[in-house]
Amino acid sequence: MTADAAKTAPSDLAYVPFVSVENMMRLVHHVGIETFLEELASHIEADFKRWPEFDKSPRVASHVPGGVIELMPTADNALYGFKYVNGHPKNTRTGHQTVTAFGVLSEVATGYPVLLTEMTVLTALRTAATSALVARHLAPKDASVMAMIGCGAQCEFQAMAFRALCGINRLRLYDLDPKAVEKASRNLTAQGFEVTRCGSGQEAVEGAQVITTCTADKQYATILTDNMVGAGQHINAIGGDCPGKTELHRDILLRAEIFVEYPEQTRIEGEIQALDPDHPVTELWQVMRGETPGRRDAKQITLFDSVGFAIEDFSALRYVRDKVQGTSFAEPLDMLADPDDPRDLFGMLTRSAG
Amino acid sequence: MTADAAKTAPSDLAYVPFVSVENMMRLVHHVGIETFLEELASHIEADFKRWPEFDKSPRVASHVPGGVIELMPTADNALYGFKYVNGHPKNTRTGHQTVTAFGVLSEVATGYPVLLTEMTVLTALRTAATSALVARHLAPKDASVMAMIGCGAQCEFQAMAFRALCGINRLRLYDLDPKAVEKASRNLTAQGFEVTRCGSGQEAVEGAQVITTCTADKQYATILTDNMVGAGQHINAIGGDCPGKTELHRDILLRAEIFVEYPEQTRIEGEIQALDPDHPVTELWQVMRGETPGRRDAKQITLFDSVGFAIEDFSALRYVRDKVQGTSFAEPLDMLADPDDPRDLFGMLTRSAG
Repeated sequence: MTADAAKTAPSDLAYVPFVSVENMMRLVHHVGIETFLEELASHIEADFKRWPEFDKSPRVASHVPGGVIELMPTADNALYGFKYVNGHPKNTRTGHQTVTAFGVLSEVATGYPVLLTEMTVLTALRTAATSALVARHLAPKDASVMAMIGCGAQCEFQAMAFRALCGINRLRLYDLDPKAVEKASRNLTAQGFEVTRCGSGQEAVEGAQVITTCTADKQYATILTDNMVGAGQHINAIGGDCPGKTELHRDILLRAEIFVEYPEQTRIEGEIQALDPDHPVTELWQVMRGETPGRRDAKQITLFDSVGFAIEDFSALRYVRDKVQGTSFAEPLDMLADPDDPRDLFGMLTRSAG
Repeated sequence: MTADAAKTAPSDLAYVPFVSVENMMRLVHHVGIETFLEELASHIEADFKRWPEFDKSPRVASHVPGGVIELMPTADNALYGFKYVNGHPKNTRTGHQTVTAFGVLSEVATGYPVLLTEMTVLTALRTAATSALVARHLAPKDASVMAMIGCGAQCEFQAMAFRALCGINRLRLYDLDPKAVEKASRNLTAQGFEVTRCGSGQEAVEGAQVITTCTADKQYATILTDNMVGAGQHINAIGGDCPGKTELHRDILLRAEIFVEYPEQTRIEGEIQALDPDHPVTELWQVMRGETPGRRDAKQITLFDSVGFAIEDFSALRYVRDKVQGTSFAEPLDMLADPDDPRDLFGMLTRSAG
């Protein structure tokens, strides 16, 4: 490099490692999907166990016509992370994803981003890893059958995580749209699951120890009615995750022991928006630290009112950063202006003209 | 492209146009710095004039050891934008920028990002364009001399904008650090300014119709004392922009007519954090719409208590998007997962293994 080139070429500080969708998929296959989910769950569990160390706030949601766009920041003493994520239920009509996401991890000490990554695939993985991790604490012992109501984009990821972390290999699938059931059934059979296609939600829950609800319509829906839920079941409620969007009949909530990520956010966005603001809930980080019991007996109905919290994304960003450092899974992106003399940004600009 | 490649290659929806630092600098030179600042100011003014249409909230600030990391979102009915920006005053000691930034513009209808861009250079330009735009409404007629106290990274951008928009060509520079004065003086002389280096702030303000304060230390500093400010001057106060960081003596505030971007944010972050929460201020969007007067007479002291608001970044993102569409200034980034069937994200992942 000539002296002149050295003057205008970006320094190492200018580059942010970027993980594209293609590289994220390469990484997942390189690690193996189930191993990826297990390792991701370990990172999430480690961060839940040090919950009080995090700077936490409910996500910043912009409710726009047609959907919502959210920023989900959190930080510990060393790293800051945030995720951009949208939720547009009608997007599939125009060939778009309902949810797309990307995220950034930064060094707290300098404020400099150290990772930019796609998070559409990664969010599907972290949501599934969190559900299965929570089920390890709450599902009945020796659970082997899971009902899955809602066979959209998240469905197969949930199944993979429940097999990897909880050993569940038998699935009972139902969706209002038979094509969605067909898609999930095809994908999951190819992965070696024993799949039963069901004609109704009622049929799906028969014999299941775990019920996963994961539907996308933004409305107060009743995917599960009270009579469908029996003693000892664990409900993994994924789809009720923003104001005005729930899946469970209120009577189920009143019979269940409810576990949440971050009450301040879940009371606004989760199933429990249907309950009084002081209805008792248990925080999962306390369960994972062993400070509060998870499932207490075989007859209890447990409910994970999942909405997705920033710390889970933080864990995922941290995991991906650990995995891609020094590999070809990340490519350098010239995203940060970094003049030789930090106060001479203008000089950098004018010199770049020559 | 073969049928198999078509199955795994990302679709057009997967790509987000990305403007790197290098391309941003190329774009600025392609347009011309002063033209860029003028066009940017026009976009900012247009957005100030339709202020009530925006979804507004104070920025989300994470105060971390050593600085602050902020997310600044806003939206109108068609577009959503946010900026990530850090402020770490001690960063220069390790060769880092005090401020780095990047931003994203998205379509409200789908939530899909349509632009990712560096914003360190762009923020310097939009901050300067906003200051000069505001000065066009507030500075005394025929102002020709500007004092600049603080000669850091923002200094030359301010000077360029004040020449482009207000015709000011004579500068009086002062900084505690003589090296900063030397750097700015060298850069600005090369741009054709008539530059006077001053030995004190007191000396710098002599004969100036406009005073720009732009220092970086995070503290309650007194860059300007009351005796330094005379009748008819316009103060462009850039540096007092977060809690605990101000530049002006309180007595100046009490004598001046104060103009702000967004009171809810400025009362927390601006010079007026030193005043009562109900101290009267004028909102600039009302001045630009002609609903409220700007400068009323030749003797009035006017103060722009600048903190930087999300709508200015939105305008900058909108401007850059208009400029780069269909050009080589933006490169496509594979950032959004976009399966053929939106509900078959898992299928896209498993097919990518082959």
